[in-house]
Amino acid sequence: MVNIAVLGYGTVGSGVVEVIRTNPDSINKKAGQEINVKYVLDLRDFPGDPVEKILVHDFDIILNDPEVRIVVEVMGGVEPAYTFVKKSLLAGKSVCTSNKELVAKHGPELLEIARDQNINFLFEASVGGGIPIIRPLNSSLTADEILEITGILNGTTNYILSKMTSEGAEFDDVLKKAQELGYAERNPEADVEGFDACRKIAILSSLAFGDHVDFEDIYTEGITKITAVDIAYAKQMRQAIKLLASSKREGEHYYAMVAPFLVPPTHPLYAVNDVFNAIFVKGNVLGDVMFYGSGAGKLPTASAVVSDVVDATKHLERNIMSFWSSKKLELTKVDEATRRFFVRTKGYLENKLSEVEDLFGEITPVSAQGVDGEFGFITPLMTEEAFHKQYQKLSDPLNRIRLL
Amino acid sequence: MVNIAVLGYGTVGSGVVEVIRTNPDSINKKAGQEINVKYVLDLRDFPGDPVEKILVHDFDIILNDPEVRIVVEVMGGVEPAYTFVKKSLLAGKSVCTSNKELVAKHGPELLEIARDQNINFLFEASVGGGIPIIRPLNSSLTADEILEITGILNGTTNYILSKMTSEGAEFDDVLKKAQELGYAERNPEADVEGFDACRKIAILSSLAFGDHVDFEDIYTEGITKITAVDIAYAKQMRQAIKLLASSKREGEHYYAMVAPFLVPPTHPLYAVNDVFNAIFVKGNVLGDVMFYGSGAGKLPTASAVVSDVVDATKHLERNIMSFWSSKKLELTKVDEATRRFFVRTKGYLENKLSEVEDLFGEITPVSAQGVDGEFGFITPLMTEEAFHKQYQKLSDPLNRIRLL
Repeated sequence: MVNIAVLGYGTVGSGVVEVIRTNPDSINKKAGQEINVKYVLDLRDFPGDPVEKILVHDFDIILNDPEVRIVVEVMGGVEPAYTFVKKSLLAGKSVCTSNKELVAKHGPELLEIARDQNINFLFEASVGGGIPIIRPLNSSLTADEILEITGILNGTTNYILSKMTSEGAEFDDVLKKAQELGYAERNPEADVEGFDACRKIAILSSLAFGDHVDFEDIYTEGITKITAVDIAYAKQMRQAIKLLASSKREGEHYYAMVAPFLVPPTHPLYAVNDVFNAIFVKGNVLGDVMFYGSGAGKLPTASAVVSDVVDATKHLERNIMSFWSSKKLELTKVDEATRRFFVRTKGYLENKLSEVEDLFGEITPVSAQGVDGEFGFITPLMTEEAFHKQYQKLSDPLNRIRLL
Repeated sequence: MVNIAVLGYGTVGSGVVEVIRTNPDSINKKAGQEINVKYVLDLRDFPGDPVEKILVHDFDIILNDPEVRIVVEVMGGVEPAYTFVKKSLLAGKSVCTSNKELVAKHGPELLEIARDQNINFLFEASVGGGIPIIRPLNSSLTADEILEITGILNGTTNYILSKMTSEGAEFDDVLKKAQELGYAERNPEADVEGFDACRKIAILSSLAFGDHVDFEDIYTEGITKITAVDIAYAKQMRQAIKLLASSKREGEHYYAMVAPFLVPPTHPLYAVNDVFNAIFVKGNVLGDVMFYGSGAGKLPTASAVVSDVVDATKHLERNIMSFWSSKKLELTKVDEATRRFFVRTKGYLENKLSEVEDLFGEITPVSAQGVDGEFGFITPLMTEEAFHKQYQKLSDPLNRIRLL
């Protein structure tokens, strides 16, 4: 029997306890021994909840109990999670976490402590909820040099964009509805501004490229400026607007960014709707693969955490290799990336064609049903730098969205 | 340094050598030591090919060389692959294979030998080509009871159905074109009759449910009876016809089958086109996940084989647990499965409605543009047994396709 402690009895923490109690036979068989939840740590009390008997308020009880071999950290946020996780690892306890802020900020240090202690620091649930992606990157895609990872990594924003598309509604209205349904937080900034997706792509990029990608280096743009009119144009072009978190390797150049993109129907991410997440990976010999599933939610996320607990149990005194060094990966400035852009501007094409073509070269005009007094166009391939320089000069610009 | 031998220098075998020579640095780093191809076994000679220097024609040279720790079997077919693999394992050499016939037929026995020898028998490439699915089933989806696996597991048939859909063409014409392009074999039976998909779902089901699913027990129907008219109806219904290989658990009942299905646009398998494969998995706590990618092809398949070689190198004297007992899993007869069916019949709805409703109950009529002298309808939920009994009584039946 292996004893574990769960730090935090919120949505994911209660999910972890529920999953272990729902599937004990198959989980214990796969782990090779019985997994027993010895403690749950939370500041709150839960009178009447079966967890009451194992609830503790003092982390030191867990830290000082040599019977606890695995600590599950599902509190979220950097502190006190970081202090608890570091102390646990230094005490020789493996840690499984769903905490993307913690992993993005302190991943390399915590992985190194785990390596030194010959135990494990696992974080499958920190990206993509229930979708297996961290373990496949570490142990399945090992024959390849990873050239690209592009993901729909935030369910809230994907839900909002999907609803804007299916209902023709405006961002603010859909956000309000999402908040009522519990799909978006009261304070939605981390989701809608792309900060959540940014931390997740930093984690995936670090694992794929082997060196540390600092999330603060990643250009990040949210979806708050996307309007129902943008969606109308996208439909006319038979494309879908998605918030993508993407990193690419081109020779010795590494690019990473989070921004809304127009995705064509030929791309597998096009059909990923509602709260679902998906991660598209390109390897230099494998070609394209994609992992799809529930990117959040109590039980899917808990399932990923418990799969880490099973793995930690199978490797109690053996470090599972992963490659994420503390050496910082220098990203190439997004300015140098080349792509096409969709632009909307006030006025009429026939009057403004020469202005637009002087700025951007040969453009492809786009119109949308029921939209008047403005027009859209797609630029030729340009660097981000050149595009934004010209876009600033455009009279009456309305919006611009990148093409995948 | 770990020495490996590659049995078979065909498409996949030459791909394995190419992948190892393309990405030596990253592969060796992930394996923890250098991987060296010491021998390639093939009956043929390859004058001028760099492999010439390490080519052998006699398997015993490999078997009797204690330096060879890992054998890669990529010959295909049951014999002599089975004999070579079994001897290799009994001699303490781990085996990595892409051979679905071998794994479906002898998987449990070979896994047991590997367990006894404390080495590994790995077969990531046997299902889904480059898509990671075997390792995720074994080591990622460990918190769940798997309730369903449904896959598009054969690229040739998916290519044919996709082309029939995009071009409105007939099966025979598309097959001929696919053969010219090398997407289909001269003798296409294994693909178009569903035999290939059948072996693959047998492997996935055995791993998911833990007991041995005999591929010969799986009801298997190919795509040779699908016509351009069926596709026209499918388009009218906004559905896609896909050859699905599916297994399900309902309580203590296990079902498995391979057959063409109508897939609605809300299902993630709907958008999987051309030669791509995808595997949809439902877990009791995880919910739905899907794995997507190139299901065949030299380098994608070789990438999966080499990822197994990396894993075997990391676990040279340590068995990686997997759950596939030799105990046979008794499948419930497909007769008892319940679903809706799409039926086409000659004649006119107004004349035959009472006949059809007497047989099937309340139906939903379906018409297709440009199709005359016949009509289609969808039955209510029925067991397979009840449906087929009534379908045999229907006057002038044309075709029937299951709904997912």
